[in-house]
Amino acid sequence: MPLTLDVTNCLSPHLDGRGIDPQRLRGPLAEGFARAHAQVAARREAGDMGFFDLPQDREGVRRIQEVADSFGQWFESLVVLGIGGSSLGTLTLRDALLGPHWNLGDEERREYYPRLFVLDNADPVSLTDLMGRLDLPKALFVVVSKSGSTAETMAQYLVVEEALAAAVGEEKARGHLLFITDPESGVLRAISREKSIPALPVPSNVGGRFSVLSAVGLLPAAVVGINVVELLEGAAEMVQRCSTPELTRNPAGLFATLLHALHIEQGMPIHVMMPYADRLRSFSFWFQQLWAESLGKAVDLEGNVVNTGPTPLPALGATDQHSQVQLFMEGPRDKVVCFVSVAGDGVDPVAIPHRHPEHPSLSYLGGHSLAGLLDAERRATAEALRRRGRPSLEIGLSGLNARNLGGLLMFMQLATVYAGALYGVDPLDQPGVELGKELTYGLLGRKGFDAPALGGGDPDWRL
Amino acid sequence: MPLTLDVTNCLSPHLDGRGIDPQRLRGPLAEGFARAHAQVAARREAGDMGFFDLPQDREGVRRIQEVADSFGQWFESLVVLGIGGSSLGTLTLRDALLGPHWNLGDEERREYYPRLFVLDNADPVSLTDLMGRLDLPKALFVVVSKSGSTAETMAQYLVVEEALAAAVGEEKARGHLLFITDPESGVLRAISREKSIPALPVPSNVGGRFSVLSAVGLLPAAVVGINVVELLEGAAEMVQRCSTPELTRNPAGLFATLLHALHIEQGMPIHVMMPYADRLRSFSFWFQQLWAESLGKAVDLEGNVVNTGPTPLPALGATDQHSQVQLFMEGPRDKVVCFVSVAGDGVDPVAIPHRHPEHPSLSYLGGHSLAGLLDAERRATAEALRRRGRPSLEIGLSGLNARNLGGLLMFMQLATVYAGALYGVDPLDQPGVELGKELTYGLLGRKGFDAPALGGGDPDWRL
Repeated sequence: MPLTLDVTNCLSPHLDGRGIDPQRLRGPLAEGFARAHAQVAARREAGDMGFFDLPQDREGVRRIQEVADSFGQWFESLVVLGIGGSSLGTLTLRDALLGPHWNLGDEERREYYPRLFVLDNADPVSLTDLMGRLDLPKALFVVVSKSGSTAETMAQYLVVEEALAAAVGEEKARGHLLFITDPESGVLRAISREKSIPALPVPSNVGGRFSVLSAVGLLPAAVVGINVVELLEGAAEMVQRCSTPELTRNPAGLFATLLHALHIEQGMPIHVMMPYADRLRSFSFWFQQLWAESLGKAVDLEGNVVNTGPTPLPALGATDQHSQVQLFMEGPRDKVVCFVSVAGDGVDPVAIPHRHPEHPSLSYLGGHSLAGLLDAERRATAEALRRRGRPSLEIGLSGLNARNLGGLLMFMQLATVYAGALYGVDPLDQPGVELGKELTYGLLGRKGFDAPALGGGDPDWRL
Repeated sequence: MPLTLDVTNCLSPHLDGRGIDPQRLRGPLAEGFARAHAQVAARREAGDMGFFDLPQDREGVRRIQEVADSFGQWFESLVVLGIGGSSLGTLTLRDALLGPHWNLGDEERREYYPRLFVLDNADPVSLTDLMGRLDLPKALFVVVSKSGSTAETMAQYLVVEEALAAAVGEEKARGHLLFITDPESGVLRAISREKSIPALPVPSNVGGRFSVLSAVGLLPAAVVGINVVELLEGAAEMVQRCSTPELTRNPAGLFATLLHALHIEQGMPIHVMMPYADRLRSFSFWFQQLWAESLGKAVDLEGNVVNTGPTPLPALGATDQHSQVQLFMEGPRDKVVCFVSVAGDGVDPVAIPHRHPEHPSLSYLGGHSLAGLLDAERRATAEALRRRGRPSLEIGLSGLNARNLGGLLMFMQLATVYAGALYGVDPLDQPGVELGKELTYGLLGRKGFDAPALGGGDPDWRL
């Protein structure tokens, strides 16, 4: 099985009575999930949840691959300008499938695919630093904003377009730009039409944090040689596997149900996502946006003020055993840990050599592999939590390849919309960020937005 | 002032009655802090808190600089093998002061200082990947483990030593190794003596998460040309500035007092650390370890079971406005956000050009700078939180240089030990990770450790 979900360590027989009674997973929690499943199915049916259908969009993928093939070969560097849902998926795909140091490799090591950078902040130092390292005549910039109005991304676009114009001329600058945006509306779509800059669509029923398997994630991935067809096949299989309303046969449903129940019934609002693989670190940040922005809501579907939502907390094993795990073991009982393990995937295990036999406190490591050490650390950490009555669950991947990653990403998207139904909120909106955007526009003097009066700033309380 | 702390947005007059009554900061909270301050002073006096004195260790710094100067010039790459407190400080110094892409630069851009890599996990893919990119005859490996028994680091050391021996011979391999470890005990110290491998000390009263200003952080920093004397000067100034028991004049004390009070009195256990600068992203992870591992404890100083401690949550502005901020704005009222802003520091502001005047929804950005945009975003986010009655505070740096960074790091270490006293726990230990270590040793068959029976793993609950 490419992905397994083991929830034993969430269940009361294994946690000294804490955790969820497994009988309830066959009773009321199963009924609750069946209702959630029906709600999701209805919204999918109504056309709100386009992410379900992305794996089936063969024509879209053909077009993405075509653009990638025609562009990719001309450039040494691909730079994505995007933020949030426009960058986290690309980082996840790059780091999981190309490894941690892709951009350090020379052409041969990269098999002549380009470097892939992501500028996901309006930080002038990062932008200046990267622009100074690029050979602009050999750089392609992909501007990703569904609305075409994301201030950070659009500001970067203006700076980059000016720099390109200075380097290669206004006319040629267009050949270094590619947009990914709404199929019809927004300023990027308009400029694309006016200047004949190629633009790929984000389907209008696919929100930013659910867009990794649209052109947003797939185009950059295809340009650097990732097999996007396998990604989508893995995702399609997961849609299939998680289509049943039967809780005990639906892994994404079980994941959502347990995390929701442990939060609401047992006071555990902090959901730790802890892969044991450096390559999945970016995945944990992608999950953080998905889970936080989808479920953290002020009002429920009936309009009642609920101020609900779990707090996703990325962690990395074994590294965070030396940082956050002390808190997970001994602090408040407010956390559930989701481990992600990766079985061997063709990478040669690194044998730890037998050295320094005169030091048994060191030489005991000899003969093991680094992968075996990492696995032992994860199992030991799960067991130590369990013995303290602290719940965890484990997602096991049979390997880290495009197909399995596609499955994992779809798994989390499905779990998120199921969780939305369980929390009783709309997982597709994000009304809480509007006020901040309006205040920013006001501060920048954008027409139609008043300069806001900012509170705070009492000099007595500024040390 | 190199560092300012503005806490206005934690105070009830500015939060519609929520937050802390400022009168209490001049009354009972001031008294509570004075007691905490006295406890910290007593433990410092007793010699438990060596981190206070690191900025004064002129002889130690001279030795570090000497080693750095003699080694640094010979190597093209410096690789730190370390985890947790042995790596987070180095990453913080590198990323804050050398920028996000140091390792991508060629020699000239690096002014002939080496690249600096940190292997902070037992991940075989990361290790193999990096080793394949290094020119081993030109690589220096710094093995950092205070105890000399950290399994992940020691396993990496064995693999690396074997690879060096294969590349340059056993005899010459020693010249590519440097240890940072306990001054007297442990296997790294023993090997250092036996094989004449140079080893710098971590003072025995300086724990891993308080070690950034010891050789642990300073040696790698000095090798890549960071001015460690200025780092320490900034830290020394902060010790001085935060030495008063008067709460309203002690910024580190005020920071600790407010975060503690908002947690314990107002149910806000999640402390968000959100710098608005990519270069401080690693700092937020360094802070996470410091705050989580110091304060997340099962028992208080009297031995009562308390299971207390806040959960630090790293975030990055403006990036996380498109990820976590929806949850911060609308989710449960369980968070306090600590913004970190960086004023201009000699980097030319990046002007956003006037382009596309035909699109006012884009051209309004023209004439601003990226730094100005980032600053407006931070102020808007703080104000949007404030209008919702959600507290935040702001640490303002006058620039991001070695001196200010030294001050910021010391500020957080001081705040942490003050917070330890306020929470009533020992901020210097980490007993909760012992069980996991023992179970790992058992799984690996280390002599003296029994093979553990692991619970869980019920096949009925493995989907």
